[in-house]
Amino acid sequence: MQTDGRRPRLTPAIADVRRAVRESLPDVTRAADAATARRSRRADARADLLVALSGGPDSLALAAAAAFEAPRAGLRAGAVIVDHALQPGSADVAERAARQAEELGLAPVIVTRVTIDGRGGPEAAARAARYAAIDEALAATGAVAVLLGHTLDDQAETVLLGLGRGAGAVSLRGMAAVAEQPGGTRIRPLLGTRREQTHDFCRDAGLEPWHDPHNDSAAFTRVRVRQGVLPMLERELGPRVAEALARTAEQLREDDDTLHAMAIETIEDLVEHAEAGIAISAPALEANPPALRNRIIRYVVESEFGMSLSRAQTLAVVALVTDWHGQKGVDLPGIRVVRRGALLEFARA
Amino acid sequence: MQTDGRRPRLTPAIADVRRAVRESLPDVTRAADAATARRSRRADARADLLVALSGGPDSLALAAAAAFEAPRAGLRAGAVIVDHALQPGSADVAERAARQAEELGLAPVIVTRVTIDGRGGPEAAARAARYAAIDEALAATGAVAVLLGHTLDDQAETVLLGLGRGAGAVSLRGMAAVAEQPGGTRIRPLLGTRREQTHDFCRDAGLEPWHDPHNDSAAFTRVRVRQGVLPMLERELGPRVAEALARTAEQLREDDDTLHAMAIETIEDLVEHAEAGIAISAPALEANPPALRNRIIRYVVESEFGMSLSRAQTLAVVALVTDWHGQKGVDLPGIRVVRRGALLEFARA
Repeated sequence: MQTDGRRPRLTPAIADVRRAVRESLPDVTRAADAATARRSRRADARADLLVALSGGPDSLALAAAAAFEAPRAGLRAGAVIVDHALQPGSADVAERAARQAEELGLAPVIVTRVTIDGRGGPEAAARAARYAAIDEALAATGAVAVLLGHTLDDQAETVLLGLGRGAGAVSLRGMAAVAEQPGGTRIRPLLGTRREQTHDFCRDAGLEPWHDPHNDSAAFTRVRVRQGVLPMLERELGPRVAEALARTAEQLREDDDTLHAMAIETIEDLVEHAEAGIAISAPALEANPPALRNRIIRYVVESEFGMSLSRAQTLAVVALVTDWHGQKGVDLPGIRVVRRGALLEFARA
Repeated sequence: MQTDGRRPRLTPAIADVRRAVRESLPDVTRAADAATARRSRRADARADLLVALSGGPDSLALAAAAAFEAPRAGLRAGAVIVDHALQPGSADVAERAARQAEELGLAPVIVTRVTIDGRGGPEAAARAARYAAIDEALAATGAVAVLLGHTLDDQAETVLLGLGRGAGAVSLRGMAAVAEQPGGTRIRPLLGTRREQTHDFCRDAGLEPWHDPHNDSAAFTRVRVRQGVLPMLERELGPRVAEALARTAEQLREDDDTLHAMAIETIEDLVEHAEAGIAISAPALEANPPALRNRIIRYVVESEFGMSLSRAQTLAVVALVTDWHGQKGVDLPGIRVVRRGALLEFARA
């Protein structure tokens, strides 16, 4: 029965995970202040933050650390447990996690069962359903933020999964430590913490985590990355590869955010709506460096036509600007791009 | 004896490698025009470009394709063969490559033997010696550019080697397709070509490449990446991982170049030389997004003190700006950073 009311001994793992959570709590306070200022926070809110708990070691350690740290920061912490109903006995797993959350002193504890429709692949569908349920729980409790248990290892795996996509910083930027979303702020306090630390935390705190059999199923690419790819990279490139990948994600996220913001700022000056679609000034595009030029084209096509351009498609469009010699235009799926004088015109084909 | 004077049949591999070389030749023409305009080109130049030839399949295919394409573009192509003198019989290998280059019609063909002093590790030392010898050959022949045989596979391997460093885009930007250097322009026409294509080229053209035993020695991290890491990633993440890595390098290089140029532009306005070192305006730093702010700090420390800051060191300095609460300062190896009023002061410790 978890802690049996005893206070756990302060081991290195417990101290480290608690510190990580403690350092993330100012983000909750900021989100609460902002919501209060906007008056979007309900006066009868029952919690400031919720911990997203699966019952696994990462989120259980996070929940225990939040239960300890939040009151000391003047914050009320509850929990939300999403039952994905994908495995037999999932309701029992959810109930057990809920009891653990209550014993840790989290309140309120919300258990919510979701239906997954499988759109966009099983993993994407489960993720979409999970975040929708979390947003509902935030709304129901008036909490402004959710703490998510993703660790440094999850971040490294995300980067490795992105290597196969080849979309540059967009593929490799990993998960954000703090992300403001319409439903509330998503905070990942453990992105700098190795997964092993959360296991040690649970052991040291006398907490019994649930072990998801999906985490060992080689049918999932992420599991193969965890069990095969990352250990082999650590063997061949050096033992600190996971940390290096997480550091890289952080830096590429900064780079991509900065360049994306600059591209958006620029767009207003060089885009005009045409009768059949949208037009961009070719000389203005050419005056921008490739990192901005390519982002502007991708962003315009994405927001106007809802289509995500590949690198090859983007470069084909760019050639109408940088290598203009009267060519006929570029046909993208459902979109025709032609150069007319100083304008690059995009229209539905 | 290679081609025996016969023209090789135009197979897909020969067509592809030739096209890649053909498309890179305008970069040679541009370099020649620029050198002529600067009058830095010698009137008695004996070649426009040199192919860096090791005798291995990549550079031998490159040499053969350049021998075919350069005259058709009005360019004179020679070759430079660097004998690293690291293996017994290396002089014979170099002589054999020189004969192949001559038979292909390249002229002049320069063989140069270098001494490697091992500074910075054996691979880095060999690279430094190689490029110094190439620059000498460029100067001796009056050529403005060197073609290097790096393939898409080399680029993918370079990105994977960078994953272990964790310095974001700087680690993952790979090699440039075209790089202007003081000694001449370095051009890598085969960065979009799979290594296998160059092997097929040699087979189809009746060329017998040399196989470097170092390419199979698991003592080199790069060889382990080639033989173990990349094939395993292709198995686990998908067969097009090498292409995805090369695409990612290209995009991160664009991003990094753009942000680096912006950081340099900004520096003039916010840096001032102090008595003991250099000072940066803290409010101006803070007004910049993290991607620029961190690059400015790294660049200033690099150019003023010749020291390359790690991510953790950079963030420690940044905290004096973004999380200023009167702390004492930051000690970097040999450099002391303190905040004094609105200034961040860097001085030798």
